[in-house]
Amino acid sequence: MKNLLALLVLIMGFSLSPCLAQTTVKDDFKPSTLNQPGQEYPQVNSQGYARFRIMAPEAKSVVVSLGPGGTRGGTPLTKNEDGSWTGTTSGPLEEGFHYYRLTVDGGTFNDPGTLNFYGSTRWESGIEIPAHDQDFYALKNVPHGRVQQILFPSPSTNTSRRAFVYTPPEYDKDQSKRYPVLYLQHGWGEDETAWSNQGHANLIMDNLIAAGKIKPFLIVMTYGMTNDVRMGGLKNFDIKPFQTVLLDELIPYVDQNFRTLADQPHRAMAGLSMGGMETKTITLARPDVFSHYGLLSGGVYSPEEIKDKSKVKLIFLSCGSFERPEGVVNSAAALKEAGINAVSYVSENTRHEFQTWRRSLYELAQLLFK
Amino acid sequence: MKNLLALLVLIMGFSLSPCLAQTTVKDDFKPSTLNQPGQEYPQVNSQGYARFRIMAPEAKSVVVSLGPGGTRGGTPLTKNEDGSWTGTTSGPLEEGFHYYRLTVDGGTFNDPGTLNFYGSTRWESGIEIPAHDQDFYALKNVPHGRVQQILFPSPSTNTSRRAFVYTPPEYDKDQSKRYPVLYLQHGWGEDETAWSNQGHANLIMDNLIAAGKIKPFLIVMTYGMTNDVRMGGLKNFDIKPFQTVLLDELIPYVDQNFRTLADQPHRAMAGLSMGGMETKTITLARPDVFSHYGLLSGGVYSPEEIKDKSKVKLIFLSCGSFERPEGVVNSAAALKEAGINAVSYVSENTRHEFQTWRRSLYELAQLLFK
Repeated sequence: MKNLLALLVLIMGFSLSPCLAQTTVKDDFKPSTLNQPGQEYPQVNSQGYARFRIMAPEAKSVVVSLGPGGTRGGTPLTKNEDGSWTGTTSGPLEEGFHYYRLTVDGGTFNDPGTLNFYGSTRWESGIEIPAHDQDFYALKNVPHGRVQQILFPSPSTNTSRRAFVYTPPEYDKDQSKRYPVLYLQHGWGEDETAWSNQGHANLIMDNLIAAGKIKPFLIVMTYGMTNDVRMGGLKNFDIKPFQTVLLDELIPYVDQNFRTLADQPHRAMAGLSMGGMETKTITLARPDVFSHYGLLSGGVYSPEEIKDKSKVKLIFLSCGSFERPEGVVNSAAALKEAGINAVSYVSENTRHEFQTWRRSLYELAQLLFK
Repeated sequence: MKNLLALLVLIMGFSLSPCLAQTTVKDDFKPSTLNQPGQEYPQVNSQGYARFRIMAPEAKSVVVSLGPGGTRGGTPLTKNEDGSWTGTTSGPLEEGFHYYRLTVDGGTFNDPGTLNFYGSTRWESGIEIPAHDQDFYALKNVPHGRVQQILFPSPSTNTSRRAFVYTPPEYDKDQSKRYPVLYLQHGWGEDETAWSNQGHANLIMDNLIAAGKIKPFLIVMTYGMTNDVRMGGLKNFDIKPFQTVLLDELIPYVDQNFRTLADQPHRAMAGLSMGGMETKTITLARPDVFSHYGLLSGGVYSPEEIKDKSKVKLIFLSCGSFERPEGVVNSAAALKEAGINAVSYVSENTRHEFQTWRRSLYELAQLLFK
C-alpha cells in the first residue's frame, strides 16, 4: 500500500511537472476571436492563458468564472487605478470554446467584451482558445453553404417552432438532386443556435465538402428541451414532447420543404451530452426512422439494446480524453463484436466542451451515409 | 411676448396634463416578450411602464439607461433586503422596441434577464413595450418564409462576408419563379441581424403575404459599416467600401445564387437612419441599379437630385412623429410636384426607434414592385 502510494505520487509528480515548470506567461496576448467588434479584451496568449479586463470603477469585487480545467475554478480580478479590473487565468485553458460569466459585487453578468452564446439556459460570455487543429472549422475561401432559419408549425406545442437547416453550397445549383439529413441536437441548457455559433457546424461541413472528404448532406438543428427542463434539471426529463416535435412535426416539414432523401437509410440522428441521451432514446424507440446514430459525450449503446441490427448502419460514440473515454471505446468494441458497425472517437486533451464536439462532428460527418 | 409665453405655458400645460394626471401605475406587470427563457424581469405593464430587477447584493449603485422618451434619461434602481435592485420607469415608455444597458458600480453591463440586440456597436439589452398595432409583426400561424444566412466572397475586403436573405414561404415550391429584391440596411451601430431580430422583417413579410397584401419578394440584409465607423462616428464615413461590397460583390452573388429578377426595375434599396444615408448616396450614384428607394428616418431627396426621373419608380420617405415629420412630408410633396412617385409616411407617437421602422417596412413593402 505504501509502495502504491509512493508510485502514485511519483506518477502524479511527473504528470504535473510540465504544468509546474511553466512559470513564464508569454506576453503575446491577442483579443479573443469571439470578442465583440472593436473590443480588446478578453485576450488569449499562445500558451492558452486568458486575460480579462472589466471596467467597474466602484465595484468591490469582480470574478471571472473561468480557470484552468474548463469552467472549474475561477479568476478573481484586481482593481487598477483607472477603475478597470484585470486578471489572468492561473494556468492555460484547454483548446477551443469555453463559456464563462462574471460575478460583479455578487451579481451575475456577462463580459461586455465578448459575444454571447446560449448555454446553461442563458446567454453567456464565450472565449476561444486557438487550437492546433482549428483549420477544420476556420472560415476559409471555399464555397459556403447556408444556415437557414425555418419556422415550422408545431400543433403539439401550439406554436411555430424554430430550427436551423444547413444546406451545402451546391444545394441551389441542381434542383433535381436530393440529400440525406442529419438531425443534430445540442446539450442541456443550450439551444438550436449552439451547433452553428459555438460548434461552427456549417464551416466544418463547408471545409469537408471543399476538401472532397464527404458527400454533401443537410443538417437540421432544433431546440431539444421542449418540456422545459431548464430549472428542474434532467431528473424530470420526459422524451415524449420532443419526440413528437421531432418525428411528427419537424421531419415531415423538412421532407416537404427541402429536397431530402426521405427514408430511414438516409436519415441520421446525433446529439451532444443531453442531446446524446435524446438520440439514444429516440433511435431505440423508432429504429424505422434513423439508420445512423451518434452520441457525442452522450452515453453509449449496449449490443442488447439494438433489437434489429440490420436497421443500424452506423453507431458513432465519442467523448473527450478528459471525460471517461473507456466507456465509448469499450462500448464500440462490444457493438462491433456483436456485428454492428460501431466507431469510437476520443478527442485528445479536451473535456465536456465544444472542442470535443466540433472534432466529433468532423469525424462523424466522414462516416455518414456511406 | 408676455401673452405668447402665457399661451405656451397653457399649451404645454394642456399637452402635458394627460401624463401628469396619470399618477396610478397599474399593477399588471408581465415579463417582457424579449426576456431570456424563464426570466421574470424586466416586466412591462399595460400602460407601458417598465420594471427592472437586478441581483447584485454587494453593489453600490445600479442604474438602467432607459426612461420615458426612448433612451433618454434613466431609471436608478433601489436596493432590497434580499440583495436585489428594483425600480420602475418614471413614466410610460413608447410602444415598441428599446435598447438599454445597466450601469453597475460605474461599469456598463447588460441586464442578464433579456436577450441581446446589436446596437450602438455592441450587443445591448432590449425590451418590448406591447404596441396597439403589434399584430402586423406577430408570430402567427401562417406559412413562414426563411431567413437564410449566406457567406459571400468579398475580394475587396479579403474575406467571406455575412448577409441574411429573407425568402418567402412559396420560394421553394415553384422552381421556375423569379423574385424582385429589396436590399435593406440597418442603422449606425447596428448590423445585419437588426432587421430580423429587432425589426421582425421576416414576420412582417410573412403576415403581409398571408393577408394577400403584397406579392412576395426577397429581402437582403448585410453589414453597412464596412469601413468601420464604429469609433469615429459618421463624420469620417466613406461610402465607397460599402458600395463596392454591395454592388460588385453581394448583388452579383445574390443574383447568381437566388432566383431573382436581376434587373433595375425589380431591385429596391432602403435603409434606416445611417442606412438611409447609404441608400440615398448609392441610389443617386447608381440609378441604373435600383428603381425603388426608401429612406426610413434617414433623410430626404430633393427633386434636383434626381437626374433621370424615368428611372425612379418609387421614393418612400418616413419617420416617427416625434422626429421631424415635416421634412419627409414636404420632401415627398416636392418630389410629387416634380412628377416623381413619392410617398411619405409618419409613424404616430414613435421616435428614432425600431417601432417607426417596423411600421415603415410594413408600408413600404405594400408599395414596392407594383
